[in-house]
Amino acid sequence: MATNITWHESLRRSERETLRGQRGYTIWFTGLSASGKSTIATALEQHLLHLGVGAYRLDGDNVRFGLNKDLGFSEADRNENIRRIAEVAKLFADASTATLTSFISPYKADRKIARDLHATVADGDEPIPFIEVYVDIPIEVAEQRDPKGLYKKARAGIIKDFTGISAPYEAPEAPEIHIRSDKVSVEDAVVQIVEYLKSKNLLPAAALKN
Amino acid sequence: MATNITWHESLRRSERETLRGQRGYTIWFTGLSASGKSTIATALEQHLLHLGVGAYRLDGDNVRFGLNKDLGFSEADRNENIRRIAEVAKLFADASTATLTSFISPYKADRKIARDLHATVADGDEPIPFIEVYVDIPIEVAEQRDPKGLYKKARAGIIKDFTGISAPYEAPEAPEIHIRSDKVSVEDAVVQIVEYLKSKNLLPAAALKN
Repeated sequence: MATNITWHESLRRSERETLRGQRGYTIWFTGLSASGKSTIATALEQHLLHLGVGAYRLDGDNVRFGLNKDLGFSEADRNENIRRIAEVAKLFADASTATLTSFISPYKADRKIARDLHATVADGDEPIPFIEVYVDIPIEVAEQRDPKGLYKKARAGIIKDFTGISAPYEAPEAPEIHIRSDKVSVEDAVVQIVEYLKSKNLLPAAALKN
Repeated sequence: MATNITWHESLRRSERETLRGQRGYTIWFTGLSASGKSTIATALEQHLLHLGVGAYRLDGDNVRFGLNKDLGFSEADRNENIRRIAEVAKLFADASTATLTSFISPYKADRKIARDLHATVADGDEPIPFIEVYVDIPIEVAEQRDPKGLYKKARAGIIKDFTGISAPYEAPEAPEIHIRSDKVSVEDAVVQIVEYLKSKNLLPAAALKN
C-alpha cells in the first residue's frame, strides 16, 4: 500500500479541498446573548454533518475553558479572545472544514479583523470565504428569554459591561446573512444559511443530492 | 430538505465521529531540527487525505505567523506556544480530524501537558488518542543535513538557545512510535505510523480498502 506514496513540500488549501471534496470557509455568527446564535449554529453543524460535510463549531464551551482560559474580560483580553478565535477558525477553514463560530462578538472592528484575516492568504490562493451571520433580535425579546438569567444580573449590576445593557452591540451593516431570530424558526434559519452556501457553491455535489 | 432537521443541545465527540465516519486524534511529532519531522508529517497528511481521511497538520508556518504571532522566544512564551498548539490540536481532534503537529517540542514537561490535555475530556467521553512520534536522528546527522543553515548559525552563536547545540532536547522515553529517520525512508516511516493507526482501529473501514 505504501508503494505509491508521493508528497510535496506542503499542501495548498485548494489541493486539500480537492482531496477532501469540500470547501473550507468560516460562518461567523454574531448577535446578542440569547439571540439564538448557538442554537442555530448547533443545528446547522449537525445538518451539515448529516449531509456528509465535515463541520465544526467553535464556541465558549470549547474555547473559553481551553485555548483562551488565560484571558479575562478586560478590553485587551476581549480583543485577544476574538483574535485567537478568528485565527483558529482560519486554521479550520484552511483544513477545508465548514467552520462555525458562535460568539456575541459585539464590535465591528473585531469582526473586521476576523474577516480581514480570512482574506490574508498565501500567494495564488483564493481568500477564505467569510460569511457573517447576523442573528438579529430586539433586545426586549432577548431580555425576556434570558435562559441563563444573565440579563437579570446585568440589570442588577452584578454583571458589568453586559452587551446590550451596559455595553454596546454594534450591529453589522452588511452581513452576508441576516436572520430575524424572533420571527423565523431555527429550522428556517438553517435553510436560509444552507441556501446561501448552495448559491456560493460551498456545498459539495454529494451533499446536494441529500 | 429541511423538514427532517433535528438537533441536540450540542454534539458529543463520539456522535461527531460516527457522523463523519472517522476518529479524531493527535499525532504529535517531536525531534531535532532537520530530523525529518515535517517531511514525514507532510507525507503522512497527504497519504491520509488520499485514503479519504480528513487530516490537517499544524506547524510553524500556519501557527507561528498567525495564532502565535504575539509570542517570542522567552521561556514563558515558548511554554505558551506549546500550550496553544496543544489546545488547538485538541480542538481539531475533537472535530474528529486526524491532527498532526510538527514542532521540535524539546521538553518532556511540555509534551506531557499536551498529552494530559487530550486526556481531559467531558464526562462519559473517551480520552482523545495522543500519539507521540519520536523522530530520532543523531545530532551529527541533523547538523550535517542543516537544510536551513540553522545549526551553522547556532554554532556561530548567531542563534541562541538552539535545541541540541545550546539548549537541551529531552528525548521521549516511551513514545508510541519511534522512528530512526537516518535509517528509514520517509515512505517507510509513513507506513510505520499507518500500521500503528490500523492496530489501534483509528483508520476508517473505507480507508483500509485502499
